Amino acid sequence: MNSTIQTQLNHRSIRKFKRQDISKDIIDTLIDVAQHTSTSNFRQSYSIISVTDEDKKQKIATICDQHYVAEAAHLFIIVLDQHRNHQIAEEMAVDTSVIETTDRFLAAAMDCALLTQNMVIVAESLGIGAVILGSILNDAKALIEMFELPKYTFPILGLAIGYPDQEPQLKPRLPKEFIHFENTYKSFDEINDKLQDYNDTVQTYYDLRNSNQRVDSFSNQMSQQMTMKHPKRMENLSRLHEQGFLKK
Amino acid sequence: MNSTIQTQLNHRSIRKFKRQDISKDIIDTLIDVAQHTSTSNFRQSYSIISVTDEDKKQKIATICDQHYVAEAAHLFIIVLDQHRNHQIAEEMAVDTSVIETTDRFLAAAMDCALLTQNMVIVAESLGIGAVILGSILNDAKALIEMFELPKYTFPILGLAIGYPDQEPQLKPRLPKEFIHFENTYKSFDEINDKLQDYNDTVQTYYDLRNSNQRVDSFSNQMSQQMTMKHPKRMENLSRLHEQGFLKK
Repeated sequence: MNSTIQTQLNHRSIRKFKRQDISKDIIDTLIDVAQHTSTSNFRQSYSIISVTDEDKKQKIATICDQHYVAEAAHLFIIVLDQHRNHQIAEEMAVDTSVIETTDRFLAAAMDCALLTQNMVIVAESLGIGAVILGSILNDAKALIEMFELPKYTFPILGLAIGYPDQEPQLKPRLPKEFIHFENTYKSFDEINDKLQDYNDTVQTYYDLRNSNQRVDSFSNQMSQQMTMKHPKRMENLSRLHEQGFLKK
Repeated sequence: MNSTIQTQLNHRSIRKFKRQDISKDIIDTLIDVAQHTSTSNFRQSYSIISVTDEDKKQKIATICDQHYVAEAAHLFIIVLDQHRNHQIAEEMAVDTSVIETTDRFLAAAMDCALLTQNMVIVAESLGIGAVILGSILNDAKALIEMFELPKYTFPILGLAIGYPDQEPQLKPRLPKEFIHFENTYKSFDEINDKLQDYNDTVQTYYDLRNSNQRVDSFSNQMSQQMTMKHPKRMENLSRLHEQGFLKK
């Protein structure tokens, strides 16, 4: 096993950072690698905003409801971006309505997540911790206004990085037979008899965890999450429609 | 710069593979790493199907309209999977309708792309080539039927890997100032004066490329893509609705 894979298997999201800057060279490398990620049909349907303004960082931390976002050495907002290609095509008098399809939105969303993971790997390979922030979507409208994001763009993920000031335990993942199949999909009902073991494992993990004590089986967590309906998140389809996406 | 980052910066999608098997250990490692990727709220909203059946591989290659898919040493279909968590919650008599929101779908879609990129990195770190296949969505319905995918699942990406039998040139990416901003988003109209240089660079890249000659500026490619409306892809919102997603 090589060092790349070791780093990947050792992944933990880091939520407590040292007060230590990340060099401009490293930030440049992160962007370089992001740009070298595969993108659907060469469209490069993304932009990346480095949020260095303390006031904006603080506001985003509040939106995320995660104070550590403000304490990260560097905060990126990954923007799904079809604005650029829309402008290029419109200049050439081409009908751009295909951008409004779910199909094209999905492809662009994939672009964004792929490059985000590539950035995570760069950071971790350099001993820098990272946490991906889906929580920026707690208030998509606030982000859109903060960065004056035009039509055909959408802030899809955040990424906070910094030198780690914690060493969380590795979180136990689902047994492989639940998520990896060969040639046929197995419905969960066929294999759920092994869930209790996993529930026990997850419970033990939480029992042993130093901080943030929480005693919850996987089943309980998944069930509880069904009732978590953040009001603004429940409106994200409207936000996406307003930005020109998912119309058909 | 470490070897991980060198691998990342050297990324090229590989579309021609040697007839050389990939060991079961390596496939296991790919799945291990996939499972160690960050997932939104610990939901692990994915399944991975290894397609080793030659007939199914061939059918998928036909759907993708890319013959090399059938020639890859290993083909994965990444399935966005909320079925498992739905079953768990339903067993506990919890209302699961939140799964039908765009917000939850997006989070699961991010999970899937993040782990796909993590798998790509494993492969490339071992000298194995990879290509991510958005093209499986040329016929989502055929994939859903082939694998009998239940409600709350959706085949979102393919990943074909194999030992490379080609060495494609590195494709020139957009100038950094087009895609990386600090604190404020820059509309393309403010910076588009540098596009012509990039168009020239892309054109030169295609002129020099050994195979698959295509002489196209970036602007031309992006504009032409606006007119590419694969009929079945244009129906993907309906496919997603049928699977229970994006309802609100």
